Amino acid sequence: MRFENPVPLSEIAALIEARVVGDSTAFATGINEIHQVENGDLVFVDHPKYYDTSIHSAASFIIINAEHEVPEGKALLIVEEPFEAYLKIVSSFRPFQPSMDAVSATAKTGAGTVVMPNVYLGNYVTIGANCVIYPNVTIMDYCTIGDNVIIQSGTVIGSDAFYYNKKTNRQAHYKKMTSCGTVVIEADVEIGAGCTIDRGVTGVTRIGAGTKMDNLVHIGHDTLVGKNCLFAAQVGIAGASVIEDEVILWGQVGVSKTLTIGRGAVINAQSGVRSSLKGGASYFGSPAVPAREKMKELVWIKRIPQIWERLNKS
Amino acid sequence: MRFENPVPLSEIAALIEARVVGDSTAFATGINEIHQVENGDLVFVDHPKYYDTSIHSAASFIIINAEHEVPEGKALLIVEEPFEAYLKIVSSFRPFQPSMDAVSATAKTGAGTVVMPNVYLGNYVTIGANCVIYPNVTIMDYCTIGDNVIIQSGTVIGSDAFYYNKKTNRQAHYKKMTSCGTVVIEADVEIGAGCTIDRGVTGVTRIGAGTKMDNLVHIGHDTLVGKNCLFAAQVGIAGASVIEDEVILWGQVGVSKTLTIGRGAVINAQSGVRSSLKGGASYFGSPAVPAREKMKELVWIKRIPQIWERLNKS
Amino acid sequence: MRFENPVPLSEIAALIEARVVGDSTAFATGINEIHQVENGDLVFVDHPKYYDTSIHSAASFIIINAEHEVPEGKALLIVEEPFEAYLKIVSSFRPFQPSMDAVSATAKTGAGTVVMPNVYLGNYVTIGANCVIYPNVTIMDYCTIGDNVIIQSGTVIGSDAFYYNKKTNRQAHYKKMTSCGTVVIEADVEIGAGCTIDRGVTGVTRIGAGTKMDNLVHIGHDTLVGKNCLFAAQVGIAGASVIEDEVILWGQVGVSKTLTIGRGAVINAQSGVRSSLKGGASYFGSPAVPAREKMKELVWIKRIPQIWERLNKS
Repeated sequence: MRFENPVPLSEIAALIEARVVGDSTAFATGINEIHQVENGDLVFVDHPKYYDTSIHSAASFIIINAEHEVPEGKALLIVEEPFEAYLKIVSSFRPFQPSMDAVSATAKTGAGTVVMPNVYLGNYVTIGANCVIYPNVTIMDYCTIGDNVIIQSGTVIGSDAFYYNKKTNRQAHYKKMTSCGTVVIEADVEIGAGCTIDRGVTGVTRIGAGTKMDNLVHIGHDTLVGKNCLFAAQVGIAGASVIEDEVILWGQVGVSKTLTIGRGAVINAQSGVRSSLKGGASYFGSPAVPAREKMKELVWIKRIPQIWERLNKS
Repeated sequence: MRFENPVPLSEIAALIEARVVGDSTAFATGINEIHQVENGDLVFVDHPKYYDTSIHSAASFIIINAEHEVPEGKALLIVEEPFEAYLKIVSSFRPFQPSMDAVSATAKTGAGTVVMPNVYLGNYVTIGANCVIYPNVTIMDYCTIGDNVIIQSGTVIGSDAFYYNKKTNRQAHYKKMTSCGTVVIEADVEIGAGCTIDRGVTGVTRIGAGTKMDNLVHIGHDTLVGKNCLFAAQVGIAGASVIEDEVILWGQVGVSKTLTIGRGAVINAQSGVRSSLKGGASYFGSPAVPAREKMKELVWIKRIPQIWERLNKS
Repeated sequence: MRFENPVPLSEIAALIEARVVGDSTAFATGINEIHQVENGDLVFVDHPKYYDTSIHSAASFIIINAEHEVPEGKALLIVEEPFEAYLKIVSSFRPFQPSMDAVSATAKTGAGTVVMPNVYLGNYVTIGANCVIYPNVTIMDYCTIGDNVIIQSGTVIGSDAFYYNKKTNRQAHYKKMTSCGTVVIEADVEIGAGCTIDRGVTGVTRIGAGTKMDNLVHIGHDTLVGKNCLFAAQVGIAGASVIEDEVILWGQVGVSKTLTIGRGAVINAQSGVRSSLKGGASYFGSPAVPAREKMKELVWIKRIPQIWERLNKS
């Protein structure tokens, strides 16, 4: 999430009651997760295992729960509970102020775009030209839709990330990591009926230009979908995965989180992708393996009775 | 289903044209399925196989299609078609009288709760404090939502049970068993976008406190979900199953009806649970087995060609 | 798609700038895909492989991109881009003119039918008697619903087909084949919450009388579902398949396109149907095979370690 204007680090420090180590006169331009950080960003870390990665990431300001060396030009904000500090910053700089109008006064739609009845467009939603938004669609705050996009009925764009914190044994329950990210849908995308596309936790869930999705497809938070992909009905993609250009996922395929499917890969129906797959090839199975390998395996399995018989004869 | 006030058994008998065997001066407090009955309830049974279970259940009054001995303090209501009698009682005591206002005048919401545009709240819906009900959500009659609950867009709470009667060959088609049950969602639950949670047929579908669900999850009628469970996207649970506390179901897991998953069990993505599973362990596969067993099996399958080769050499 | 009135072939030819070979004084009654054509129809073909099938189909008028012999009583309409010609005809004879009223003035509902709040009924939607259309349902233009039908909340009837043209290398992207077909839901059907039923591309997606579907079910374009079928939650059927009468699909079953499942077949949960299956039998697995065969296979797989051990001993 980018702040509307750069914010003095001292203001952030006061808000979260942090002790600053390093240059406290700097300005923060936003707050992001470790995978999404840019120069000028705040990031938070609460486990020693990730201290070094966070401090040496692109982030300029690290909210942390311990003393640590800090590189030139960066600053630490030391607090007891970095996760609580994150929540405080998000609720302060992007408070939940839902539009109670079905179409927010701050939502914008381009020329030739049709928004049908019973649609909800939240605050600062931007829709390009020549789009059709079918009845009963919901597009939540800050989402951006390109030109010539079709979104069919019942679909939800910008639902919150499914992202909870339950690291410590002190907590008996899951604690929500408030989403302050967004969804960007590029030009010429078509999204079927009854789909759900979650916003990024702090960053962007992106659907690349020309991609087409059938009905009841789920796209998790921070997932990056390339251009001209084809997703059949009931496909589900967990959070923060990368689907490169021209990937085809057939019906009911499931894709795990934080992996990459290479350009032009084809995943057969009902397959389960549990780790990254190279592009330009066809896959099948749960877990998914190269389709030819899976097909051979099915043949081998059919030979077991024959093996058993030969063994008994020998 | 509980009647608003206890009803004289004679009134029920007149309604369904039943002959009473036993104490006809008693009062019935409700009607329920055999799995949900309590003292004071009516229950119905139309197959000799279930006569004994029904008569010796907690139910006080048994709608039945044959003469039978009856224990002290209970009564039989003898009719030709017990299922039709059930339908008559439900349509008489809980008739379908849908609110034609988007938010029924009898729906109640607690302090700090936000109900966004295009939401439908049916008759006698009760929502606690500090909840957020996102746009285009539907909550049907009599459902109860606790405090601090988040329900994301497009989700449906209290749809009818998928429950039909086709026992006899006399019927060419499925006959709906009218739902008169409800859904109870406890405090601190979060439900993603596009989910569907069916009401109980006569009893309750319950989601325990602190449980979190991702998008496009289906929960069947009369299912009891424990506390602090985590269900990833596109999970589906059939009717009347019990999911104990702290169970994790990963993406696209399917769970059959009337089984139990024990406390703290973890079911890997795309698994299919066909029978009860013990808690505290990890499972995988369709049908689901202990995850280590499944992983070993996948390794063994890869050895078949090697076995074949050795057999040919020997 | 049937035209409102028969259209002179010369008018069609002028619209798509085609050269007519054959009788140009005829009248066209509609336009359809090759699988749906009837006498009097236009059809289009752009690949030599399908020239003969198209010309000798029931269609009377063939939009084609080459010279060809033409049978007595038929005519060719020769254009450079038959697919573009199809799009022109559809947008001319069934232009996208969405109703901006939640319930179109041209929608009709029968006696005793209840349409609840937040429902969208498009142009020329027809609903029979004694139906219940629950909140937040969307029914798009020209769909037809029979008597005694129940459609639960959030369901979408008549979303566009997921059908794109990417045959030639000249195109870098997918081009939408505009849907001009419809959905017909026969009497006594019940459709759960959050389902999606796509319209036919040019023809009809049909749900046969008495069929019951649970929640989050997807039915692809031009699929023909028989009478008294039962589909459990999260079932998905791709386009143009035929599901005969009394078929049962249990939860999360996936069915590929353009195949047939025979009368009374039962497909176990999570199975994947990749080719046609005969009726009257039970199937399981992905790909689905006879259930007994699959069960035996699972037993054989468990014997591999034993085989391995014996081989090592011998």
